[in-house]
Amino acid sequence: MNFLANFWYAAGWASEITKKPLARRVLDRPVALFRTEGGKAVALDDCCPHRMVPLSHGTVEGESLRCGYHGLRFDCAGKCVEVPGQASIPPRAKVHAYPLVERWKFAWIWMGEPAAADPDLIPELPWLDAADWAYSHGCIIYACNYALLLDNLIDLSHTTFVHQRTIGTDDVAKTPVRTTSDAGRVLVERVMDDTEPSNLYRKAGDFTGRVNRWQRIEFTPPASVIIDAGAVPAGPDAGKRGINTRVINIITPETPQSTFHFWAFARNFKLDDASMTQYIAEAIMLTFNEDKRLIDDQQRNVDARPEQRMLDNTADYGVVLARRIVERLLREQEETRAHA
Amino acid sequence: MNFLANFWYAAGWASEITKKPLARRVLDRPVALFRTEGGKAVALDDCCPHRMVPLSHGTVEGESLRCGYHGLRFDCAGKCVEVPGQASIPPRAKVHAYPLVERWKFAWIWMGEPAAADPDLIPELPWLDAADWAYSHGCIIYACNYALLLDNLIDLSHTTFVHQRTIGTDDVAKTPVRTTSDAGRVLVERVMDDTEPSNLYRKAGDFTGRVNRWQRIEFTPPASVIIDAGAVPAGPDAGKRGINTRVINIITPETPQSTFHFWAFARNFKLDDASMTQYIAEAIMLTFNEDKRLIDDQQRNVDARPEQRMLDNTADYGVVLARRIVERLLREQEETRAHA
Amino acid sequence: MNFLANFWYAAGWASEITKKPLARRVLDRPVALFRTEGGKAVALDDCCPHRMVPLSHGTVEGESLRCGYHGLRFDCAGKCVEVPGQASIPPRAKVHAYPLVERWKFAWIWMGEPAAADPDLIPELPWLDAADWAYSHGCIIYACNYALLLDNLIDLSHTTFVHQRTIGTDDVAKTPVRTTSDAGRVLVERVMDDTEPSNLYRKAGDFTGRVNRWQRIEFTPPASVIIDAGAVPAGPDAGKRGINTRVINIITPETPQSTFHFWAFARNFKLDDASMTQYIAEAIMLTFNEDKRLIDDQQRNVDARPEQRMLDNTADYGVVLARRIVERLLREQEETRAHA
Repeated sequence: MNFLANFWYAAGWASEITKKPLARRVLDRPVALFRTEGGKAVALDDCCPHRMVPLSHGTVEGESLRCGYHGLRFDCAGKCVEVPGQASIPPRAKVHAYPLVERWKFAWIWMGEPAAADPDLIPELPWLDAADWAYSHGCIIYACNYALLLDNLIDLSHTTFVHQRTIGTDDVAKTPVRTTSDAGRVLVERVMDDTEPSNLYRKAGDFTGRVNRWQRIEFTPPASVIIDAGAVPAGPDAGKRGINTRVINIITPETPQSTFHFWAFARNFKLDDASMTQYIAEAIMLTFNEDKRLIDDQQRNVDARPEQRMLDNTADYGVVLARRIVERLLREQEETRAHA
Repeated sequence: MNFLANFWYAAGWASEITKKPLARRVLDRPVALFRTEGGKAVALDDCCPHRMVPLSHGTVEGESLRCGYHGLRFDCAGKCVEVPGQASIPPRAKVHAYPLVERWKFAWIWMGEPAAADPDLIPELPWLDAADWAYSHGCIIYACNYALLLDNLIDLSHTTFVHQRTIGTDDVAKTPVRTTSDAGRVLVERVMDDTEPSNLYRKAGDFTGRVNRWQRIEFTPPASVIIDAGAVPAGPDAGKRGINTRVINIITPETPQSTFHFWAFARNFKLDDASMTQYIAEAIMLTFNEDKRLIDDQQRNVDARPEQRMLDNTADYGVVLARRIVERLLREQEETRAHA
Repeated sequence: MNFLANFWYAAGWASEITKKPLARRVLDRPVALFRTEGGKAVALDDCCPHRMVPLSHGTVEGESLRCGYHGLRFDCAGKCVEVPGQASIPPRAKVHAYPLVERWKFAWIWMGEPAAADPDLIPELPWLDAADWAYSHGCIIYACNYALLLDNLIDLSHTTFVHQRTIGTDDVAKTPVRTTSDAGRVLVERVMDDTEPSNLYRKAGDFTGRVNRWQRIEFTPPASVIIDAGAVPAGPDAGKRGINTRVINIITPETPQSTFHFWAFARNFKLDDASMTQYIAEAIMLTFNEDKRLIDDQQRNVDARPEQRMLDNTADYGVVLARRIVERLLREQEETRAHA
């Protein structure tokens, strides 16, 4: 399994990284995540070069991490700075330190060439830091390759059939989309005028009648899907204030067969309403668990039938374009490696 | 692993097939089993051609099944009859519909060539539909290949050592059998005159003394073992009414390493005695779980020692003949496929 | 995975072997362990030659074991002495009987050439049978290859970082060791004069001040590590009675990826103090479970990185010498087999 290496991935929520080291697998490699006493978030290869015990079993000491087995101590750059009981430190005593940047409430990790790790490439998620937005958030782990989760998020026609309890309505699958793309993104737009609001929208937006609703789904590689969605009252109430949301989906492959889905649901209304934050968190976790049940089983069929090609419908055009972008980038990565 | 394809297998008890689709694996292939609103039992390949999600996550609508992911709808022949949000239906949008026939309380599935699926080939099990018979029934899943379960059922000498609590007695293993066979079946007969009844027989037949007992074990391919067994009083009580039973064992490979054993224990006595039905059900489940403990572990030894040949004793003659029939049929199947 | 075959391994504590057969895997082979009615401990290949069911499902009858499936009966040499329902016994009806000797509270098994099984080669563990010693004991199963457990026990510098709650102190890792070896053993000696006692030592030896402490770690192949350890009061209390212990570690590979660690902690003090026996048992199980957490995860890193070489520090010299002995013996075993 080849992953796109030279991209920023979410290693986790920044708040997950504390003085107690966290073991996490990213692009099928083990990473020890921890925060130094000075507050710096650090990601080291989770394998002590001495006896290969995971460093995530260790303890933070000042600006360093001490291995929990024989006490070798490493600085934030992965250099061994102490071997207990021994004066000299062998040059081989070092581990890879992955570039790690905290921004937009996430800790972003760079698994590829460190020299290429430009923080300006981190996707912009201003809604998570803005005073006029509030958000709910969470993480769900799927037992599938991340490609199936991308499919799921890019083609929202499934919400009609899977998520009637929360975000789906009959009109979503019926409404044609406008799909556009360039080399670096895919955009799928759906406008539903004079339509029933979903259960979640009805509750969030206090809608009493029909609405004009939109979804603007933007995929950017390697695996982000940002959805600009919202609704305003239709018909007699037109002109009244509606709701505006961003469903932020930051996807990180854990292994070829498992995937982290870090999600946030940002809103521009009821900013101080903690019960709304809680309600949305629960509704979205319910929604994504409805997906998980399907796509984890989907993966089992996909694994068992390597020869079977999926059948693409009209609604899959965005999915197809997104796959093409990923495949092109993988080819380019292969070629760069072959020439290196 | 090669299975005999052109045979009827029990996909389940007919009563298991309802409007709520059931996912079941038969001959290592996933099947979605459901009953339409009109009452027809249907078996479709459990993989939507669109995104390969199992159709068993879907919902029955009239005489069709709607996929639970993007809502494609399939008729009972597996033909897609609706793609939401799209007028035309691509010709590739279809799934295999397995022939499925309800008879003798079972739902029989045909995994091979549909054209060869002749319902007259379904084994006759009249005792499950007859007014002068009653039955207990159940299902147990073994973690072994079906061949080990066939061995178990054809050579009942093991009941002496494994099932003394229910159906075994000291005399079973001691008593020689008469084994006969033709191209399509193996018959193993054992007659035990003037013998102690088993615990189950004593309770079922109200025997107070010794009995004359018989077992007539008939194997037919692919994997059915029907046992005509019973007893009448011996000695002073000779001539009094005895008991007659049929132990019906319908075996369906789930995977090469797991096996469904659908069983029924039919009797011609105490027909309306619900507590007898319950007692026998519990005794037989206890009995088969005693077997499961042994043969699941037996499979682990068999897997670990591909070079070791089992040692056949005199009592294994029926087992050997049954294996020869299956092997011959597999060879014929191979040859037919090679010429196709 | 190649194991050293011609050595005695602990199949278990002698007390574990009873009339109820025990299934245990040794050097990745299944063994049925049982005690005859006459009291003899026996180890047979755990696979009946008839239908390959594990013999450990059987029952002891006098000086024999009867298979739990079809009742074949085997004597202590593995020879079949009865086939129910059949007069003659086929010559192939036999199983391998592994040499098994009870000594020093252990049952020692010989998985190699039976002719070479000389009981004089069993390691001497007199502390487990001596009137002037008492001991605590137990067993822990690791999810790693036995090599990682050997490393753990030979290099005790880790106790400083892993076992501060029980046996570790700051000085262990700081104190240089003296390492010697010959063709058949490795000896690692560490003397810590005027040092803090560990928590366990403080409680066991009633030390109120500093101590002079020693560790004398002796590895002998295939996988035993006997530690002569103890302490006497230092400074003002010098000359007072100290404590002397033997930590006996008898290691048996279960599979290439799992390992039995049979351990005993013998002491020459408080011999009749059952609460001390209990306290030490609990402290040592806590200690070894601290190791298990690390080295089970260590194995996962080792498995995932076949190309990575561990980095040996000065403290690893004993570990390196022990590995060399094992590797030499494995080479010799290979050569012997090649010439056979």
